[in-house]
Amino acid sequence: MMVHSSVSSVVNNPIATEFLASCRLTVDAELDRLIPKESESPQRVHSAIRWSVFAGGKRFRPALLMAVGQTFGAPPDHLLRTACALEMIHTYSLIHDDLPSMDNDDLRRGRATCHVKFDEATAILAGDALQALAFQTIAEDEELAPALRIRLVAEVARASGVPEGMVAGQALDLEAESRDVKGDELETIHHQKTGALIRAAARCGAMIAGANEPELEAITAYATNLGLLFQITDDLLDVTATAEDLGKTPGKDARAQKATFPAVHGIEVTRQRIALAHRTSHEAIARLVCPTGKLSMIADFILERKA
Amino acid sequence: MMVHSSVSSVVNNPIATEFLASCRLTVDAELDRLIPKESESPQRVHSAIRWSVFAGGKRFRPALLMAVGQTFGAPPDHLLRTACALEMIHTYSLIHDDLPSMDNDDLRRGRATCHVKFDEATAILAGDALQALAFQTIAEDEELAPALRIRLVAEVARASGVPEGMVAGQALDLEAESRDVKGDELETIHHQKTGALIRAAARCGAMIAGANEPELEAITAYATNLGLLFQITDDLLDVTATAEDLGKTPGKDARAQKATFPAVHGIEVTRQRIALAHRTSHEAIARLVCPTGKLSMIADFILERKA
Repeated sequence: MMVHSSVSSVVNNPIATEFLASCRLTVDAELDRLIPKESESPQRVHSAIRWSVFAGGKRFRPALLMAVGQTFGAPPDHLLRTACALEMIHTYSLIHDDLPSMDNDDLRRGRATCHVKFDEATAILAGDALQALAFQTIAEDEELAPALRIRLVAEVARASGVPEGMVAGQALDLEAESRDVKGDELETIHHQKTGALIRAAARCGAMIAGANEPELEAITAYATNLGLLFQITDDLLDVTATAEDLGKTPGKDARAQKATFPAVHGIEVTRQRIALAHRTSHEAIARLVCPTGKLSMIADFILERKA
Repeated sequence: MMVHSSVSSVVNNPIATEFLASCRLTVDAELDRLIPKESESPQRVHSAIRWSVFAGGKRFRPALLMAVGQTFGAPPDHLLRTACALEMIHTYSLIHDDLPSMDNDDLRRGRATCHVKFDEATAILAGDALQALAFQTIAEDEELAPALRIRLVAEVARASGVPEGMVAGQALDLEAESRDVKGDELETIHHQKTGALIRAAARCGAMIAGANEPELEAITAYATNLGLLFQITDDLLDVTATAEDLGKTPGKDARAQKATFPAVHGIEVTRQRIALAHRTSHEAIARLVCPTGKLSMIADFILERKA
């Protein structure tokens, strides 16, 4: 109930749509500069990287990083490369997650996944190369002081790996496929698998802007709830959305016996948890003195999204 | 002829053996500290990482980094973490290269490869996590100034990825399996697949020690030839060594139609190329004013190795 009233108040928010579209243009242009051309050797891997990076992603993590950075007054030029690095990590994780031995997905964003379009070996290498390129991109970002770059590399590396980052979350998710998962286990999976990188994106934006410790804590709380909001709405869309909206077959999670919020808690509790995460993300930034319109807007956008 | 006389002069060099054994002890202890315990969640991935990292590797890249660093006067404490990071990158590449869709190897260093002992998904994730941990390890190395750490992250990332690093070399190697490879293509594959990380190990050691530009150039030339020496002796051992020495089945390259030096050039030309790479690596460091005994010793050790 609460969710639906919130949704209706922000549906078709033109400012959010415009901000995300503008971030996407800037990020896509920079990714095109950073990633080797298809004509360059080894061509097959470069083609595979570009196939997956330029597959129509929403660039949510880069947009979040840029929104947080701009909130604390960072110049856009200082945010762009780290935003691209986050998208590289995200894309490598999608390529590897889609592999036959992992989630075995043939379709992503309405087109063939990397290993289907190319082959498994090429998909594994494309993901590996993107991870290296992400860290290289931050390390070589001459807009930023070396001490800051090092904090960013450490932040992104911790969020990507084990024991509490994205890879750990994917490992827990795979382990959970064959058995019953309790509610708190499910939140741990979400917290690591999707949450860690979303949190890192927000925190990197704040670090680049030179946010102080209380500000960084507020942003961490905001992004933790935003990550949960993102993943639970994703789970719910898999149950309720149409194939056309999603660009992939809905209901796939249920068939794969994935641990999802609707599967563990039912639709009604899922909607309540979404409303709580949305409200808590707003509360986390209420303490900040800088104008937080962009951050509120992003939380509302996640809540109302159709895909 | 030349090769055999060189070999006989260095066979069973006790100083080289002792140096490598001592590096290995220090590196193994530090890797044990840096890598999450098997008891920590997600346990299966942590077990898989440890299975592959502690599989009896020679720690050649760490030893090279430490030898170069010590040659230019760096304290061992400054070299240790980056040495471990190089070994993490190397191990992740072995885990991924062994996968069924890549080289499809069941056995490495005399025991089951990671995906055979665990499963493919776990092996992919173990490799992904190791790559992230490598960059995290350098970024969080508080012995080193931030500006130096950033140079090291950039160096290792470039050496690991595309368009000219380790992943690029593995991609070219896979592409080459089904067709005839020319001599210069083969050198490019070796230069990237094995050479890039060996070169990075040596260069990182020199950078940590604060070597100047001419010194760094000499080390780069030394390590480029050392990498070639390493890979070509590896190719030759696959033809001439016994299974017991290798800890794996010899002749595997030939059956997989791998592009190797003996396959492309024959045994005699391969032996000549080995002698040339060995001599050139020595010549590259002849210009240095610091005592280069350790570096000569490593080149000799690679030349004489049996596995």
